[in-house]
Amino acid sequence: MSSSAIEFARKNYPRFLDELKALLRIPSISTLPENTGDCRHAAEVLASELKRIGMEHVRLIETVGHPLVYADWLHAAGKPTVLMYGHYDVQPTDPLDEWLTQPFEPAERDGNLYARGSADDKGQVWAQVKALESLMAATGKLPLNVRVLLEGDEEVGGEGIASYVASKPPELKSDFALISDTELFAPGLPTLCVGLRGMIYTELEVRSSRTDLHSGMYGGAAPNAFVTLAQIIAKLKDENEHILIPSFYDDIIPPSPEELAAWKSLPFDEEHYRKTEVGSKALVGEKGYSVMERTWARPTLDVHGIPGGFTGAGAKTVIPAKATAKVSMRLVPGMTPAKSFALYKSYVEKIAPAGVDVEVRLISAGDPSLIRVDNPYIKAATRALHEVWGKDTVFIRSGGSIPIVGDFDRHLGAPSVMMGFGLPDDNIHAPNEKFHLKNFSLGIESVIRFLEEAAN
Amino acid sequence: MSSSAIEFARKNYPRFLDELKALLRIPSISTLPENTGDCRHAAEVLASELKRIGMEHVRLIETVGHPLVYADWLHAAGKPTVLMYGHYDVQPTDPLDEWLTQPFEPAERDGNLYARGSADDKGQVWAQVKALESLMAATGKLPLNVRVLLEGDEEVGGEGIASYVASKPPELKSDFALISDTELFAPGLPTLCVGLRGMIYTELEVRSSRTDLHSGMYGGAAPNAFVTLAQIIAKLKDENEHILIPSFYDDIIPPSPEELAAWKSLPFDEEHYRKTEVGSKALVGEKGYSVMERTWARPTLDVHGIPGGFTGAGAKTVIPAKATAKVSMRLVPGMTPAKSFALYKSYVEKIAPAGVDVEVRLISAGDPSLIRVDNPYIKAATRALHEVWGKDTVFIRSGGSIPIVGDFDRHLGAPSVMMGFGLPDDNIHAPNEKFHLKNFSLGIESVIRFLEEAAN
Repeated sequence: MSSSAIEFARKNYPRFLDELKALLRIPSISTLPENTGDCRHAAEVLASELKRIGMEHVRLIETVGHPLVYADWLHAAGKPTVLMYGHYDVQPTDPLDEWLTQPFEPAERDGNLYARGSADDKGQVWAQVKALESLMAATGKLPLNVRVLLEGDEEVGGEGIASYVASKPPELKSDFALISDTELFAPGLPTLCVGLRGMIYTELEVRSSRTDLHSGMYGGAAPNAFVTLAQIIAKLKDENEHILIPSFYDDIIPPSPEELAAWKSLPFDEEHYRKTEVGSKALVGEKGYSVMERTWARPTLDVHGIPGGFTGAGAKTVIPAKATAKVSMRLVPGMTPAKSFALYKSYVEKIAPAGVDVEVRLISAGDPSLIRVDNPYIKAATRALHEVWGKDTVFIRSGGSIPIVGDFDRHLGAPSVMMGFGLPDDNIHAPNEKFHLKNFSLGIESVIRFLEEAAN
Repeated sequence: MSSSAIEFARKNYPRFLDELKALLRIPSISTLPENTGDCRHAAEVLASELKRIGMEHVRLIETVGHPLVYADWLHAAGKPTVLMYGHYDVQPTDPLDEWLTQPFEPAERDGNLYARGSADDKGQVWAQVKALESLMAATGKLPLNVRVLLEGDEEVGGEGIASYVASKPPELKSDFALISDTELFAPGLPTLCVGLRGMIYTELEVRSSRTDLHSGMYGGAAPNAFVTLAQIIAKLKDENEHILIPSFYDDIIPPSPEELAAWKSLPFDEEHYRKTEVGSKALVGEKGYSVMERTWARPTLDVHGIPGGFTGAGAKTVIPAKATAKVSMRLVPGMTPAKSFALYKSYVEKIAPAGVDVEVRLISAGDPSLIRVDNPYIKAATRALHEVWGKDTVFIRSGGSIPIVGDFDRHLGAPSVMMGFGLPDDNIHAPNEKFHLKNFSLGIESVIRFLEEAAN
């Protein structure tokens, strides 16, 4: 493992890190309209850097949302073509008062880099870009043909990239994809993610009266949208986390006995996980399933917030006319967003009481994915990871959703290698998100070696 | 009914209305810290006007909240003393986009004056003040001894006035109280309110994890504070609006058969009420009780909002660490805030699942009240109202809470005459609050005649 590209990467690491910090200072929150300009700014910074390091045909591709960044380098005749993917948009930062340092002012503490987007996903995108720079700078070329496609709507459903990929543009023709948006199972343990949950993200709205009402005057006669919504939510899943939507579980394809056995052998301390990662008094979930089965291979349902009503300090004695719950469900192989949403919608409409109007809206959706571990690119990845990390790769799934994996498979015929460098305690989507600095540097080296191995 | 004071009031009505509009332009929202200065400003305007019309010992009394306004005129030897009460604070204005005109820019439409606080309670306070001015201006004196006590925390629990009254200050010594903060049962129908519900306003907080979590990574293992809260709320009352807190109904003193019979004879069209006041597809409530019983003589439970979590536009896939519901209960004669809160708290703690921390906080509380209709001041009021409105008075209760009524009774031995001039469709606590202009002018005349009658 003494490639000249790796030497270049090691020598230039301090600069790479400073550049990453600059990227993290851009508050590219894709879900907030006020950050639209910041998202474009992040896209432009990435495009400019890809051009600088020698990539070609660099351009922004406009979408219904934030722009895609495209670049390629296609001079490795006879070699396969990789499509490298990541996203430059980040999650919102609320609750802001729980951050120890400002989310968009990167801070190094204890070998970690704290900032919104550090692990999810700018740090990983930058590792890809810096791997390409190192190969270009050290050898004057790339070992295989490379296309780069970065998006800015991953945290809001990725509608733009989905329709672009669905149009099967010739410029995306690739043999496989490299996706850096996942994590190691444990510190120092090289990991490839070979399964993802899908998702439907919805809004469930109850309208109970024409206008807000005084709870003294009308309490006892007027329906209360929040109480009705709570009653509906309480019927969506029971206290053992079993989802009560009829037929919801019907199409699930369970993991193979081999996969289940491999999961059992992973280093996992449930009590440590509860205390240090989840930070709750008890774990929850369907009886009879392990934590890994529950978070990787079983569908789940969560409520993210209930806007509406009175949310200020103090007291306001109002019966709100309307309440809206943000409700999402994670889906597993075998399930489809369309059928799952239809089952959910018709169940909610059935259980809604007569006195109120209920509306269920689909905000975004993504298919679940499963990767075959016997494909040559997965094999190349395990060789590369062994060299860099000195250990055999473990195959895991992720409970999260990367809908683009299914899109690359379906529309481009490109299987994905999900090689990511986050850690389970990186606080992604939460206050104090961080990226382990060692994983940033070894991430760059892993991508360099993987591209070299995949060229053979 | 040709008192010279009434003639003065009729002649000066346009000025009275302009002065009321000026008072309504002050955004004295008591629950919002940013409006603290506006509350004091409203108090100062009232104090200055009371001084101008000839009241004495006018002063602001500082409290833990916004100041009280005190004034008196005590030169009617041998006559009884009335304590006139109202409040100058108003409810918040959200949702602001549902107002047809700005809440703090009074607008006349169709014989009504639209503004936050127009009916609740500045319009009624101004009717009191203008009645005093008319009596003073026309006769050079008042027919009985008068104390005025106005507060600025009625919409947030009235802690300041409660502790002031509880201290039994000699300057509040009065024979009876006149409270103008209620409504007519129907347009043109003189009404005295002789019963009020009490209230406890609480926050119910669920903490499920140390920090917000990614719903993809942890969905299936981490408890969800919003789902847990919904499950708890769904157990607070059933779908027939029956509150499920054990022993909650035990101490209720039901209305007498005579009172129930009188309620039955009131002009009330339930379908019209549903359509035009509540504006819902169906009314709700405990089976076997009329709308009047349900809103006046039965306890109720409402949820006002659930701050926390993700409430922005679009999608954020977070499992919130915390969710807080604002929950209040209306109480009826026989029930006490202390016992009701204790029963609620211990029930919530009992039904909360093991995986989460639950905290129940009392934000404010008020006792229910019941007035005897055979006291001489109620009789004087019915005589005055008959003269002004040409009709017999109906005795009703209100589902709302005016805790001060209980405080005046308990600490000062002063029974209250709740003579108010709002209407059921005044949208108090909601967008497009209004005050019927006819009720403002007849309200002034009613107070003038009542003070004259009560002097005998």
